[in-house]
Amino acid sequence: MNAEQKIAALEAELAKLKAQYSAPSISPLAPVDGFPDLPVVKGVRFSSCGAAVKYAGRDDVMLMECVAGTSIAGVFTRSATRSANVLDCQKKLALGASDAPVAVLVNSGNSNAFTGRQGDESVRAICDAVSDVTNVPVGRVFTASTGVIGERLPHERIIAKVADLHAKLSEYGAEGAARAIMTTDTFPKGAKNDIRIGGQDIEIVGFAKGSGMIAPDMATMLVYIATDASVDQAVLQAILSDLNETTFNSITVDSDTSTSDSLMLVATGQSDAPRITDIGSAEAAQFAAALNVVMTDLSQQVVRDGEGATKFLEIVVRGAASDASAKTVGLAIANSPLVKTAVAGEDPNWGRVVMGVGKSGEPADRDKLSIWFGDILVAENGWVSPSYTEDAGVAYMKNSDLQITCDLGVGDGRATVWTCDLTHQYIVINGDYRS
Amino acid sequence: MNAEQKIAALEAELAKLKAQYSAPSISPLAPVDGFPDLPVVKGVRFSSCGAAVKYAGRDDVMLMECVAGTSIAGVFTRSATRSANVLDCQKKLALGASDAPVAVLVNSGNSNAFTGRQGDESVRAICDAVSDVTNVPVGRVFTASTGVIGERLPHERIIAKVADLHAKLSEYGAEGAARAIMTTDTFPKGAKNDIRIGGQDIEIVGFAKGSGMIAPDMATMLVYIATDASVDQAVLQAILSDLNETTFNSITVDSDTSTSDSLMLVATGQSDAPRITDIGSAEAAQFAAALNVVMTDLSQQVVRDGEGATKFLEIVVRGAASDASAKTVGLAIANSPLVKTAVAGEDPNWGRVVMGVGKSGEPADRDKLSIWFGDILVAENGWVSPSYTEDAGVAYMKNSDLQITCDLGVGDGRATVWTCDLTHQYIVINGDYRS
Repeated sequence: MNAEQKIAALEAELAKLKAQYSAPSISPLAPVDGFPDLPVVKGVRFSSCGAAVKYAGRDDVMLMECVAGTSIAGVFTRSATRSANVLDCQKKLALGASDAPVAVLVNSGNSNAFTGRQGDESVRAICDAVSDVTNVPVGRVFTASTGVIGERLPHERIIAKVADLHAKLSEYGAEGAARAIMTTDTFPKGAKNDIRIGGQDIEIVGFAKGSGMIAPDMATMLVYIATDASVDQAVLQAILSDLNETTFNSITVDSDTSTSDSLMLVATGQSDAPRITDIGSAEAAQFAAALNVVMTDLSQQVVRDGEGATKFLEIVVRGAASDASAKTVGLAIANSPLVKTAVAGEDPNWGRVVMGVGKSGEPADRDKLSIWFGDILVAENGWVSPSYTEDAGVAYMKNSDLQITCDLGVGDGRATVWTCDLTHQYIVINGDYRS
Repeated sequence: MNAEQKIAALEAELAKLKAQYSAPSISPLAPVDGFPDLPVVKGVRFSSCGAAVKYAGRDDVMLMECVAGTSIAGVFTRSATRSANVLDCQKKLALGASDAPVAVLVNSGNSNAFTGRQGDESVRAICDAVSDVTNVPVGRVFTASTGVIGERLPHERIIAKVADLHAKLSEYGAEGAARAIMTTDTFPKGAKNDIRIGGQDIEIVGFAKGSGMIAPDMATMLVYIATDASVDQAVLQAILSDLNETTFNSITVDSDTSTSDSLMLVATGQSDAPRITDIGSAEAAQFAAALNVVMTDLSQQVVRDGEGATKFLEIVVRGAASDASAKTVGLAIANSPLVKTAVAGEDPNWGRVVMGVGKSGEPADRDKLSIWFGDILVAENGWVSPSYTEDAGVAYMKNSDLQITCDLGVGDGRATVWTCDLTHQYIVINGDYRS
């Protein structure tokens, strides 16, 4: 090898190593078709623009406006240190149903969490400005902020853009809005579904942001879903809270729970379908099933954009003492750094799954536990399955979408949770987020 | 730059990058003085040898033998999938006090956990072999295994070495034994203390292994402590269980709990100090205080050898609703990947500490929470402290030993927990542990 070849070889090796330890520009698990082509939802308009809250050269504020008669429901982080915006939204939603229009303003780059009384004042100033421009009563103006914790929100920069945002409102603005609320996300997350109720079409569209500080038992991240269905506020809230448990509250990236998590659902009532007023009705069930598709899709997209993720992992737990017990076991496995690094390393290290079951504190019995990787029975009767081969396990782990199933054999409880692997890129992304 | 210089520069850059992403041969947090010079504890002898259970070219089995009259106490993992060895130890300790001698055999490289009935048979075969050679009754022979989960323990290799281990027993064998039980540990962990009770000297020595799969709320890892104090079995167990809560049960490396965790304490009664028979006595308190020093030291050494650790982090929580609440908050912070990666990146990202308090689910109030990094007041009254400067925070984070204090301001509860940072090396170590 001459000097020139040697230099080329060294440069190639260096480039490869650097790429391995750099944060990816887009998650390898991003949807291959990109952002979906979202249909118009009658009664909802969106806009976005750049206010340089923290990021320059990109949109970082979005506005959503819904017509009078819209029902709105929300679920929020249960963090004891939740943001001023979350507290304000919760207070306003507690006021109950209203016929007034709705506005939602969201910024990225600064979470306005742990910003003291100043944080409350920022929320009030933004809500006042939005109300002035849109004529939506201030009690129906909702906000969210996502980004760094503990730094003053420069709300004057946002307020200066409210008139601009209002002027740009469009029925086609959802994708722009989805992009404006991204932080460490590598792709915007959208989903849609439609149903016919009473012979009339109903559209459901939604978008979400979230990549790190993602953990369940809360409404996780920022999610906005809009439908033109006509639904009573109380029914809408009940459906949302219920579905939240098996979608956004069943995902985890890093076991850390955000101070800003907000999920809001608006139903404008602009479709011609009959109004849903009874949670026990067939129409409510039909609507909930359709909404579930959108919520499951968005929640899984958040996991697919988990910081540093290279593998998507579904964990199914069955045969548990109860559904709640199954979920605890599933999350113990999903949050285990040892399971997550084994997945990253494509190592079929089922012993770490056993460890996860064991540490969960839930009822389990070594000799009744069975574990599958995909369709491969790995362990049963308290030990490795006689039919299992390491070669089969190794081959399976090369897939980018993986499923681990645990049958605890002690009851009928079931749960499914979703997570991603833990990689060098997670360390790269979080070792210097603020610099 | 000529070709030769260019090659040298590229090679240097490559070597630096490779070093950054390689597992360290020894933790940068290892004690500077190495393994302590442990004194003889009258009535206890140790030996170690290589049995090639998994590792070749190193010792991987240790034997500890204690004279007749020894009291023994233990605490063990509460994992639902605990190893056959742990179940056997618990059964034997439950038999209560005995005057017979004691033997403890430990192997590394294979945990004998989730190995079904075969695992129970391995324990029985080893205990029988040790009993035959040492004349210790089989009910007083204890074992532990640490290493990979779910692979058959080749106990015949261990049994073939029992006579050799017995022949090599020595009062000076503790360091060799400490080395034989290491797995991903980068240094052996030992500690000692002595006290005078009733005018007579008492020695306490101990050693531990542990680096990954380290989480609290269990007796964590493998730890063996020996003293020549004379202590009733019930008193010894009560003291050990109590101290365990604030030492080994207050550390976490990765929130994952081992299936093999065992902490055993033997008191040979060979010192001339009076026998401790009353948990409420001044002598019991004095002994417990001395033992606490050894247990705290060993538990912190485990954190200092946490997989990939470059920073040692003490988290003090005070002003909590209760001590238990304080510990929950401390562990929520200590187990947060976002806090741990910020520490690794020397980023004074106190917002993530706020997040940790918030997600813990314990009583807290944004406006009563104060946070210190070392002596630096970072946050108070629901926001960043007016006296805090980012420069001061950045300078503090460069230390290798860090302390974060949170005063929740809602009660008198206190707790201290210890953890380490989360680095690329953790991913390297756990991404392909088994290959």
